[in-house]
Amino acid sequence: MRGRIIKESIDLFDKKGFSKTSIQDIVDTIGVTKGTFYYYFKSKQELLMDIHQNYIKELLKEQEVILNDEYISCKEKMNRLIHLIIKNIKVHGKSARVFNREVRHLDETQVLLVNKYRKDFRFNLEKLMEEGIERGEFRNHLRSDIVIFGILGMVNRSYNWYNPDGKVSEEELVSIYMDLILNGIKADTNSQ
Amino acid sequence: MRGRIIKESIDLFDKKGFSKTSIQDIVDTIGVTKGTFYYYFKSKQELLMDIHQNYIKELLKEQEVILNDEYISCKEKMNRLIHLIIKNIKVHGKSARVFNREVRHLDETQVLLVNKYRKDFRFNLEKLMEEGIERGEFRNHLRSDIVIFGILGMVNRSYNWYNPDGKVSEEELVSIYMDLILNGIKADTNSQ
Repeated sequence: MRGRIIKESIDLFDKKGFSKTSIQDIVDTIGVTKGTFYYYFKSKQELLMDIHQNYIKELLKEQEVILNDEYISCKEKMNRLIHLIIKNIKVHGKSARVFNREVRHLDETQVLLVNKYRKDFRFNLEKLMEEGIERGEFRNHLRSDIVIFGILGMVNRSYNWYNPDGKVSEEELVSIYMDLILNGIKADTNSQ
Repeated sequence: MRGRIIKESIDLFDKKGFSKTSIQDIVDTIGVTKGTFYYYFKSKQELLMDIHQNYIKELLKEQEVILNDEYISCKEKMNRLIHLIIKNIKVHGKSARVFNREVRHLDETQVLLVNKYRKDFRFNLEKLMEEGIERGEFRNHLRSDIVIFGILGMVNRSYNWYNPDGKVSEEELVSIYMDLILNGIKADTNSQ
């Protein structure tokens, strides 16, 4: 039941927004009483926090596995991490949109915690970037903090426009992003 | 008065969200009656639409000036357009955040119109990208639609984290983005 409440709420928050969705709306959709809701969650805010936490904790766990792989280069790790985010659009697209849009409805302590998780994800990417610079895989005068903000902005923004069931496959999208991130768009004057 | 209503509403929408801000809140902040509000706007939605339109129309006008400049390269146009977006964070940051977050509160006709403007801005960038490819300034096997989605995601996302009064100047941010967009992050194996 807990899972169903979460699933239906994500749908409703995505469609109507957090403020306009009442606990009544949620229980009506599932066909249970408010008591059932309150058995699992203290409030709508706690539910929203739960959605946030589940989503970002799962991402962090998968990020860790990729970062700890000793047999692949920093470039390949970057590639897999971008794939991780894009792959998640299909499975967690709605929950991520809700996450990004409704974060202001959480109270301060909750926001601090969620921001901590988000920062962890970002800082891990910065560390990867710096390791890649040290290893000579990435250019050495890059400001890793801003570059990672840029890359994350680009990739995360896909949640708002990319349709995983459309013409461009997930693999194709990741490879276009990776090509852009690694090589940029400027024509190579030597090869032209 | 019209301008003041718009300004204070942007502040309130940014702080409390659109749904939680009542017309009463808006007029209380300014110290006028609801009658004054209704003299200028039919509804809160009409006001939100107005904020959206002003913001995007102004951007489109400035974009046009840059695109029509015959004396600069496509690269330089791209540079100036990214600068245009970043520069706007200081002046229109709040209104842009409201724009991105509250668009779902507009009705369908309004959404269609706003999306038309947004698409115009994006398609103009795609055309610039294609012109740059034709002229040999940009690599020729790039998919301009996805690349522009990526670049816009990266640059637009700055509205959520970049502080124009912080350590990194607007010029520095634009130059880091341009370096990333043009050259990518991969180390040049010839020069190492």
